[in-house]
Amino acid sequence: MCSKHGIYLCEECLSCRDPDIYCKFRSACPIWYEHKRKARHARQAAALEKVDTYKVTFEPTIKTVEVAPGSTLLAAAQEAGVHINASCNGKGACGKCKLILESGTVEPDPTPLLTDQEKENKYLLACRTKVQDDITVSIPPEAVERKLKVAGLGEELSVQFKGLVSQIEPILKEIPLELTPPTLDDSVSDLDRLNRGLKRAGCDVTRLNVGLKVMQELSNAMRNEKWKVKVSVIRKKCSNEVLKVEPGNDESRSLGLAIDVGTTSIVVYLVDMADGSILAATSGHNQQAACGDDVINRIICAEKNGVKKLSSMVLSTINNLIKEALDSAESDYRQIKNVALSGNTTMTHLLLKIEPRYIRREPYIPTASEFPIFKAVEIGIKANPIAAVFIMPGPASYVGGDIVSGMVYSGLHRENPLTLFIDVGTNGEIVLGNKDWLMTAACSAGPAFEGGGIRWGMRAEEGAIEKISIDPDTLKPSYQTVGGAVPRGICGSGMIDLISEMLLKGLIDPNGKFRLDTSHPLMKDTGDEVAYILVTAENTEMGEDIIFTETDINSLVMSKGAVYAGFTVLLKQAGLDFSMVDRIWISGGFGQFLDIDKSVTIGLLPDIDRGKFKYLGNSSIGGAYMALLSDNFRQEAREISNNMTYIDFSSSSQFMDEYTSALFLPHTNIDAFPSVKIKQ
Amino acid sequence: MCSKHGIYLCEECLSCRDPDIYCKFRSACPIWYEHKRKARHARQAAALEKVDTYKVTFEPTIKTVEVAPGSTLLAAAQEAGVHINASCNGKGACGKCKLILESGTVEPDPTPLLTDQEKENKYLLACRTKVQDDITVSIPPEAVERKLKVAGLGEELSVQFKGLVSQIEPILKEIPLELTPPTLDDSVSDLDRLNRGLKRAGCDVTRLNVGLKVMQELSNAMRNEKWKVKVSVIRKKCSNEVLKVEPGNDESRSLGLAIDVGTTSIVVYLVDMADGSILAATSGHNQQAACGDDVINRIICAEKNGVKKLSSMVLSTINNLIKEALDSAESDYRQIKNVALSGNTTMTHLLLKIEPRYIRREPYIPTASEFPIFKAVEIGIKANPIAAVFIMPGPASYVGGDIVSGMVYSGLHRENPLTLFIDVGTNGEIVLGNKDWLMTAACSAGPAFEGGGIRWGMRAEEGAIEKISIDPDTLKPSYQTVGGAVPRGICGSGMIDLISEMLLKGLIDPNGKFRLDTSHPLMKDTGDEVAYILVTAENTEMGEDIIFTETDINSLVMSKGAVYAGFTVLLKQAGLDFSMVDRIWISGGFGQFLDIDKSVTIGLLPDIDRGKFKYLGNSSIGGAYMALLSDNFRQEAREISNNMTYIDFSSSSQFMDEYTSALFLPHTNIDAFPSVKIKQ
Repeated sequence: MCSKHGIYLCEECLSCRDPDIYCKFRSACPIWYEHKRKARHARQAAALEKVDTYKVTFEPTIKTVEVAPGSTLLAAAQEAGVHINASCNGKGACGKCKLILESGTVEPDPTPLLTDQEKENKYLLACRTKVQDDITVSIPPEAVERKLKVAGLGEELSVQFKGLVSQIEPILKEIPLELTPPTLDDSVSDLDRLNRGLKRAGCDVTRLNVGLKVMQELSNAMRNEKWKVKVSVIRKKCSNEVLKVEPGNDESRSLGLAIDVGTTSIVVYLVDMADGSILAATSGHNQQAACGDDVINRIICAEKNGVKKLSSMVLSTINNLIKEALDSAESDYRQIKNVALSGNTTMTHLLLKIEPRYIRREPYIPTASEFPIFKAVEIGIKANPIAAVFIMPGPASYVGGDIVSGMVYSGLHRENPLTLFIDVGTNGEIVLGNKDWLMTAACSAGPAFEGGGIRWGMRAEEGAIEKISIDPDTLKPSYQTVGGAVPRGICGSGMIDLISEMLLKGLIDPNGKFRLDTSHPLMKDTGDEVAYILVTAENTEMGEDIIFTETDINSLVMSKGAVYAGFTVLLKQAGLDFSMVDRIWISGGFGQFLDIDKSVTIGLLPDIDRGKFKYLGNSSIGGAYMALLSDNFRQEAREISNNMTYIDFSSSSQFMDEYTSALFLPHTNIDAFPSVKIKQ
Repeated sequence: MCSKHGIYLCEECLSCRDPDIYCKFRSACPIWYEHKRKARHARQAAALEKVDTYKVTFEPTIKTVEVAPGSTLLAAAQEAGVHINASCNGKGACGKCKLILESGTVEPDPTPLLTDQEKENKYLLACRTKVQDDITVSIPPEAVERKLKVAGLGEELSVQFKGLVSQIEPILKEIPLELTPPTLDDSVSDLDRLNRGLKRAGCDVTRLNVGLKVMQELSNAMRNEKWKVKVSVIRKKCSNEVLKVEPGNDESRSLGLAIDVGTTSIVVYLVDMADGSILAATSGHNQQAACGDDVINRIICAEKNGVKKLSSMVLSTINNLIKEALDSAESDYRQIKNVALSGNTTMTHLLLKIEPRYIRREPYIPTASEFPIFKAVEIGIKANPIAAVFIMPGPASYVGGDIVSGMVYSGLHRENPLTLFIDVGTNGEIVLGNKDWLMTAACSAGPAFEGGGIRWGMRAEEGAIEKISIDPDTLKPSYQTVGGAVPRGICGSGMIDLISEMLLKGLIDPNGKFRLDTSHPLMKDTGDEVAYILVTAENTEMGEDIIFTETDINSLVMSKGAVYAGFTVLLKQAGLDFSMVDRIWISGGFGQFLDIDKSVTIGLLPDIDRGKFKYLGNSSIGGAYMALLSDNFRQEAREISNNMTYIDFSSSSQFMDEYTSALFLPHTNIDAFPSVKIKQ
């Protein structure tokens, strides 16, 4: 019941006012009816008029789509498969989806997210611009998609992973058999004969299932090469399944895929199942980025547009990467018989087309934390249709299979020392424990570390400023960019460097406020607030100053505060403090590039012995690789997921207290940061 | 090697001269080559000419098809879905596929299988008539398909079957659950919550599989009726599978089907799974009859036309019968959640589209003797798509699930007395044993008992003569027909009566030769041979004499000889003779109508105490009914199939000796038939 209008509203309308969401009370809801009425009228009007479409052309790739009048340019780009950075999922809030109008006309947009200079240069925001004409747009240089900096890819891979798996046991095994031909005295059915052969080969046939399709082709398959066959058997949780029986028992090459499905980027390893060597490694942006940077926006997008669309986006990325890997290894997709895949809970749900909406609604329930073995064809992964797909289990909505995969790779659950495992990105996931127990929690760090909500923030792509130092005398910055390219923006590690330097060199106070004003030559008035000039216009790719504002600083402080509060609360819940932690292991692509000293300086990481810190790199792909090759590691993953104790912070007052205390540089309790206290 | 032409011929050509049959020696066979050469030329000529098609209309149902010139009328009828009795599968040997030409012209056919009078009345054989014009044909009254006489259908069914199953345990169980809603403190995944509920309800969740489709819809299904759900779980051999989760946990009606898939006729019982009561029973002709009467012709047909065609024929019959049963019980197909089906090995293979060709080739190997639980949608049975389908296992190519089903129904394997179980039709299947051991064998009785190869032979349909006695003085026959209708032909039980009467009344000698000649008013010269007039033309539906020839007698003697030889050899293999047999149980629709005394007289059944004989009726449907309702009986069926010792007669010289001895009326060893000896 709406208290203002005195009418009955459905739950969904009351909370989100989105009439496209299905709600069982909707038939009683006037907002829903009004929406449906309008939609019907609009459809009828459209049908009567048979309006024309407009052509939108995207440069420099030259992709053209026809869209209905009034469509946004963002929708047109999604339709055309053109990657546009839409961090906020088209809400008009982040200002990242910039395009340049090359021809045609659009209505002017009074957005404050574009500078006057940008507006002069015909910049526009894709999500706020409606198509009313045939137009051509181009993607500005600072927004062109470039190779992401991904940890741990390269030639050293095979060496790095050697020795991780001692005995290879794939999920799908190919068992070569030579059967004795039937006679009148030995006239058991073909299936019984096959079972007899499998039993001799050591297969547990009492738990064996054979499907109808295999049966339909069995008799010819067994006779075509004189009773020599190769049997593909999948090892499932509680039974084995014969997926294929092929004539001939010659050995053929068998390949595997380890896939890390990240919210931002996806990594694929192509593995030779005979010896575990990595034949190719590829990585790329998750195409779902068109629906927002974080998992919450992806779920909202799935609720609006259907989970199938999100699934096809991520599958398209995965399958392109598989093709790239196969091409470089000169192999065929049919050779891929095994796949192990890790991703956070939202990523796996979306990939599998499983309804994700309850992940983002209290009490945050996923459909499944553990999955059976699927076939590649069921999911849509471009491999042999019968390839077995193992999906990393994940204990909770916000601690998923990527973290369990990281555990498997790190092995902390096999050892004695008390270890804090952290993976910081848009979400911060934390695991605390050792071989006796494991506790885990997640805290929403916000998108700042990935560049979201930061004026010149970007991911660690080419041209991102990743390292900064500030001259103590002139206060002038010097910097280093990813790939040594002309600067385009600043990424997470660069921001941590920057804030640490600004704090130590006295540019800002512990509240994150500038101590300088605009009279200083390195400072600038943006109209709303003051900002520090990192790179002047003539040295950037866009011909604009790259600046860092107080709002940017505040965003970053909130992010680091949430992560640090997470560490503190998890330790307190276990009755421990930082002094008792033997090791801090940092996982994730972002973690790889963290400067630990500077992270301690801003209060992101605790101020303990630096020797206790270790970088793991992309541990999610590492665990997927291990699970691909070994049944023991698959079993370990299931046990980790089942045995982790998940602590929910979302309604914890303890967490709110710790968070508030952490909204300082480095912290309200400066005694917890003795090394920083000395430097200041 | 052909002794006449001195050339090498393949086995198939030597025996059947059908070059379309696959044979491994065919590449050396000149007949096969010549046939292939002609066929290729014909195809080339047809492709050059691009000929038009002709219309063929079938009356009285008025079905019209267009066919290419030169197609046979039999092919046109199959195309149109018109049932035509084609016992010999279009070889032009049986003369059963009669049609009457109503309009259009056809080339005259010199077949000896039509009488001059028939030819005058524009009768033709569908398999020997090629379409060269637009024509209309009608099905003659004697060939119109009528209701088969099926044993054991009717109102007494529910009573007869009551008490057979004490505890109902369906394959697919619907488990109603009321789950506790999740909270922040109890935030396990939906799937884990479901498993918890199932575990409380007594389900073994460690062996539970949940497929992707169920997962995709799980979250909404659980929430739509406030955490009340109904879970459909299938019990498989080594694991259980969740097939559906529906919102709401109200009880709904659950129906089951017991199906007997016979080569000739199919019986369907619609069963209330709550109490096992039979709501409806229907039966009809297997549409595969268009491809021949026996399993061998069906397999040949599957090799020619593809197993899919044969499968769709039997499915069409089954689904029509299901619809009929549902209509009479005013129920919906979606309520059908369980199916148990029995049939011989060829029938189950064809139904499941499993390659059947090796069943008829030495050493006679079926693809499978035991099947996993299938879903109705996989097979194409019109029930709820997720309905669980149990297929009766069968130990050998010629002793199938119908016999195992009969065992389950008879219960002889649970008891002490030594029992001979016999099922006589086109194939005679025999089981000998008790609770300690079971032996089984099959002998090819030929189609005579089903009316095949007999001039006026027919199945036990309306108008078939089923009982005959002959006046000892006038030698005039008096008879009774199925349904009391005007006579159309004679069925198996009628033939046994007839030969027994002719033997006892001195019309024929123990060699099966007539002692009367054509001077007798009841005898007639057919041109080739003498025949006994059973019904004169004015008393038949067709206006023609129904006669019985020496060839007919010979066919029947061969059939009964094969069956009796089977009994003898099986007993000898077990080191026994007839005197040690405690019971003879007769199964099958045909057995139901056997007169035991007369069967002994002709030497089909052994001459032992008549009190030892018992009719079981259609035991195959009985066992299917029991397996539908009880897991114990399903398990029993698997054990019977696994533990039966199968004896192969096909290359047994002992069998050939016994067979030759049995080609007498009643037997060369008259001392084995003391009661017949007395009467003669």
